[in-house]
Amino acid sequence: MEVGINKINVFLRLSALLFSVLTACLVGLDAQSKRVFFSEKKATFRDLDALVILVYVESGAACYNLLQLCKFSIPAWSRGNSKMSFVYVAWVFLLLDQLAAYITFAANSAALEAAFLAVTGANELQWMKLCNRFTRFCIQIGGALICGFLSSLLMAVISSISAFNLFRLYSPKRFLLFKQT
Amino acid sequence: MEVGINKINVFLRLSALLFSVLTACLVGLDAQSKRVFFSEKKATFRDLDALVILVYVESGAACYNLLQLCKFSIPAWSRGNSKMSFVYVAWVFLLLDQLAAYITFAANSAALEAAFLAVTGANELQWMKLCNRFTRFCIQIGGALICGFLSSLLMAVISSISAFNLFRLYSPKRFLLFKQT
Repeated sequence: MEVGINKINVFLRLSALLFSVLTACLVGLDAQSKRVFFSEKKATFRDLDALVILVYVESGAACYNLLQLCKFSIPAWSRGNSKMSFVYVAWVFLLLDQLAAYITFAANSAALEAAFLAVTGANELQWMKLCNRFTRFCIQIGGALICGFLSSLLMAVISSISAFNLFRLYSPKRFLLFKQT
Repeated sequence: MEVGINKINVFLRLSALLFSVLTACLVGLDAQSKRVFFSEKKATFRDLDALVILVYVESGAACYNLLQLCKFSIPAWSRGNSKMSFVYVAWVFLLLDQLAAYITFAANSAALEAAFLAVTGANELQWMKLCNRFTRFCIQIGGALICGFLSSLLMAVISSISAFNLFRLYSPKRFLLFKQT
């Protein structure tokens, strides 16, 4: 049974890793040039801090998932080891998983808000919309954001599974005590 | 013991509720007028969609936490009822708690990004900064965002406790089966 959960875990982490890399690449390699009157204007992800942060965060999330995948290649992990040391490590991994899920989610939400402002502009603040001029650039960012939200959704599911695997070791009667085995 | 956890839960939900209400009020009641040349300019939260969404989301979160608090006044809940019906309801509440935590977190992140743009502007996009003119307005939004992040942090903790209370009912050996009691 443990092997089955591990397989699901590996599959989910691989998918999250792929979507993170895809997001970082789609945003990072997005660029469009346009001639406005006599000057050449170029739109890149560096124009908006939120997109720069998104690239860094998604790259970090990809590295984290890669490291977690390496864990499964260590034989002791796939077999399961002594209970107490397992529990401490599992708490740390659960916290890291939760942090990773929330941070990628926050980075994606911030980038979505910035992209939304670029699409609609803000009349009251005299921020003009930009996506009517850099359409292809904006569509690529939109695709990247979909991948980004998929990766953070997958990471939320992964952290739920981590929580399930850890919390079911505890006694249902007494708080924070292990059940007898 | 269950009563102890319930007390912590009530306390956390009350705090989250207070911080949500505080955020919604701070953002919703924030307004500053300034005379620019011959016209009067007024900054309100309606100038930025992200702030409008934040007010709605935090109000919704406050209502949700209020409803959850009402749950504890029903005697059957505080005593604990039959196991199977408890489990189904607990799964639904866990999902709702998780959704509430992620949605308030996303709304706060988006509002933070919008506020960040208002503070720094975006030179490349010719979006000018606004907080040098509407300083008091921006400081109040900053305070509101701190309260908002506190409320979403509290709701993340609440959903972790919900997860713990539910998942520890399950068997540590067999996947998704209950342990014998």
